[in-house]
Amino acid sequence: MNCAAVLAAIRAAGTARVTELVRATGLSRPTVTAAVSTLMADGWVEETEAPEIDAPRMGRPARVLRFRADARHVLGIDVGPHRIYCAVADLSGTVVAHARHDVAVASTHAQLLDQVESTMRKALATVPVRLPDLAAVGIGTPGIVDDQRGAVVQAPSVPGWSSLELGSLIRQSLDCPVRVENDVNLAVMAERWNGSGGNAENLILVQWGARIGAAVLMEGQVHRGAHGAAGEIGFLELEEEPQGTQADGLGPLESAVGTAWILQRARSLGDDESPDAAAVLVAAAGGDPRALQAIDEACARLARGLASFVSAIDPELVVIGGSITLAGDTILAGLRRHLSRRALVQPRLELSRLGDDAVALGAVRLALADAERRLLDVYATSAAEHP
Amino acid sequence: MNCAAVLAAIRAAGTARVTELVRATGLSRPTVTAAVSTLMADGWVEETEAPEIDAPRMGRPARVLRFRADARHVLGIDVGPHRIYCAVADLSGTVVAHARHDVAVASTHAQLLDQVESTMRKALATVPVRLPDLAAVGIGTPGIVDDQRGAVVQAPSVPGWSSLELGSLIRQSLDCPVRVENDVNLAVMAERWNGSGGNAENLILVQWGARIGAAVLMEGQVHRGAHGAAGEIGFLELEEEPQGTQADGLGPLESAVGTAWILQRARSLGDDESPDAAAVLVAAAGGDPRALQAIDEACARLARGLASFVSAIDPELVVIGGSITLAGDTILAGLRRHLSRRALVQPRLELSRLGDDAVALGAVRLALADAERRLLDVYATSAAEHP
Repeated sequence: MNCAAVLAAIRAAGTARVTELVRATGLSRPTVTAAVSTLMADGWVEETEAPEIDAPRMGRPARVLRFRADARHVLGIDVGPHRIYCAVADLSGTVVAHARHDVAVASTHAQLLDQVESTMRKALATVPVRLPDLAAVGIGTPGIVDDQRGAVVQAPSVPGWSSLELGSLIRQSLDCPVRVENDVNLAVMAERWNGSGGNAENLILVQWGARIGAAVLMEGQVHRGAHGAAGEIGFLELEEEPQGTQADGLGPLESAVGTAWILQRARSLGDDESPDAAAVLVAAAGGDPRALQAIDEACARLARGLASFVSAIDPELVVIGGSITLAGDTILAGLRRHLSRRALVQPRLELSRLGDDAVALGAVRLALADAERRLLDVYATSAAEHP
Repeated sequence: MNCAAVLAAIRAAGTARVTELVRATGLSRPTVTAAVSTLMADGWVEETEAPEIDAPRMGRPARVLRFRADARHVLGIDVGPHRIYCAVADLSGTVVAHARHDVAVASTHAQLLDQVESTMRKALATVPVRLPDLAAVGIGTPGIVDDQRGAVVQAPSVPGWSSLELGSLIRQSLDCPVRVENDVNLAVMAERWNGSGGNAENLILVQWGARIGAAVLMEGQVHRGAHGAAGEIGFLELEEEPQGTQADGLGPLESAVGTAWILQRARSLGDDESPDAAAVLVAAAGGDPRALQAIDEACARLARGLASFVSAIDPELVVIGGSITLAGDTILAGLRRHLSRRALVQPRLELSRLGDDAVALGAVRLALADAERRLLDVYATSAAEHP
């Protein structure tokens, strides 16, 4: 366990001298020196190339040690029905490479796996990292995920993905921990980590695009719920008579507020220029009255569902992410106005600043937690074997 | 701190000998003996009157020590708009006396306080406990409560209670900690403590009677939310056009499913015998078809709101409490059927077994936590003064 303690102290300090590690760990100097030698031999720690210039002193300068964030890497992969996005990050979480693959048509599980693997290879091709160098992989997918099994147990909005054994399929080609989590749950982890959610302990993230999902952070932790289904806002049934899943696989609220509806509504209001939903959103940000009206109606509809989430949870903050953020602050203004008529108390509202990368960043975060655990396990195990 | 450690060990064990306390606390025998003397002098610990018969041994038998649960008492008070209910409990949580007062008409804050105080005196009159003997008081009230200030900040369903400074009013006549909490939040604490919620870490309690409220337990803790407003299901706005608070002070969902609506619906179905809502609920439990139909329609309406709470939180269990439980399992069957058409995943459903006492029991629980803290504080402070 001494190596683990010394490694944790170096990571916490950034760089450190042996004397400082003795103080931080409470271990003896010979013990720390031995642990540093092991950690350097194993590649986790290096001497910095340019030790700082100290006040003049006797003898050779004290060694300055640094954690090698590039000793291993992790992958975060966003596996969506239309897009696969893969980020390669070092152990400090810095993304060093990424690759994107657009999925043109619905594919079989085997085809999907091929596309995930080729996207991984594409991302790794630009950096000196090979598949066996990976410390851990995190994967985000739509739907309700069994995080123990790494499988999608229910993905009503993605035909064919229910019972997708994503984790075990990808583990076949990798020799490291692979974890699968619902994509919006990963996005909320990314928000908490380095997005808009910084200080809020209780927040709801709504990812709003073609589909719509939400994730719930309680006391700083992702709240998965009893079946991993907390936050499935897209399938809210608001009407007296339940609507059920629509023909296009969308849930009732998804089909009522998703970007496909917004495009269609803008067209019915006379917008015949916007080639796609993104163009309508950008037009709204620019003040186009038809786009603004379509957005406002969508906000009214979303507020109707979001108000019930707010009543249940009373979050401090609601973060809106997804492609809807192309419309900018007009989204916040619309939601705020419609929510105020429906909820007893009002949360703060903010737009996500993470854009399309949120899910992959959250997947990196998930993988880093695994990598960290594995790293500590290695030294805990070797300490148990050679006490 | 030695007294606190010895006291905790005696409470945990029920009864204990000094030898056992030495083992449990890791303190020396003379230290434990001195702590026991202090605790006996202060009235927290006594020798049991009938020490167990041990195997024959030399000298006098070892003393068996017991925590005096009756050394102090706490009050739990349910302050409702129509009823005040006060329970007196000892430090083990056993209710030793209670009193009830029906509030006939809406009253001023001063009149309400008079009624609370006379109900407290009535409950205390039957036991040898005086107001100054109280270790702590817990109070439950409808509405959104500022638990720091002990005040009702918003009580839309009880006209005149918004800004009711219940805590500071009651503190004027008592010299002990007084805490105020939302009534349904207290009921869920009681469910967790000794009701239906036993093992569930994530549950929603719905109190369903003339009014309707919900409380959320997450990871075993009451989830109050950012403004203390989590679970305010009675004010859910389900319709496209918000309804707002009704003329009778009820929230939109309350007025759509409360017992007043059930009575009215049963009458419109031809029930002209039931004198009140309770009679309709009892008739439903007995199989009366008109009562059953009214209940089923109410279940369909409640399921519409509850499904959105279930989607947000994905609880393991939903407990239904309040006077609606008079109708028995027909409530569970109705809710289950209607929820299954609306929610992606289904929680378990159970009826509360605590009846009308749930809020006062939860208030007892809240007061016990304060009493415990105060007790430990006394010895921690004296240890700091005389280390």
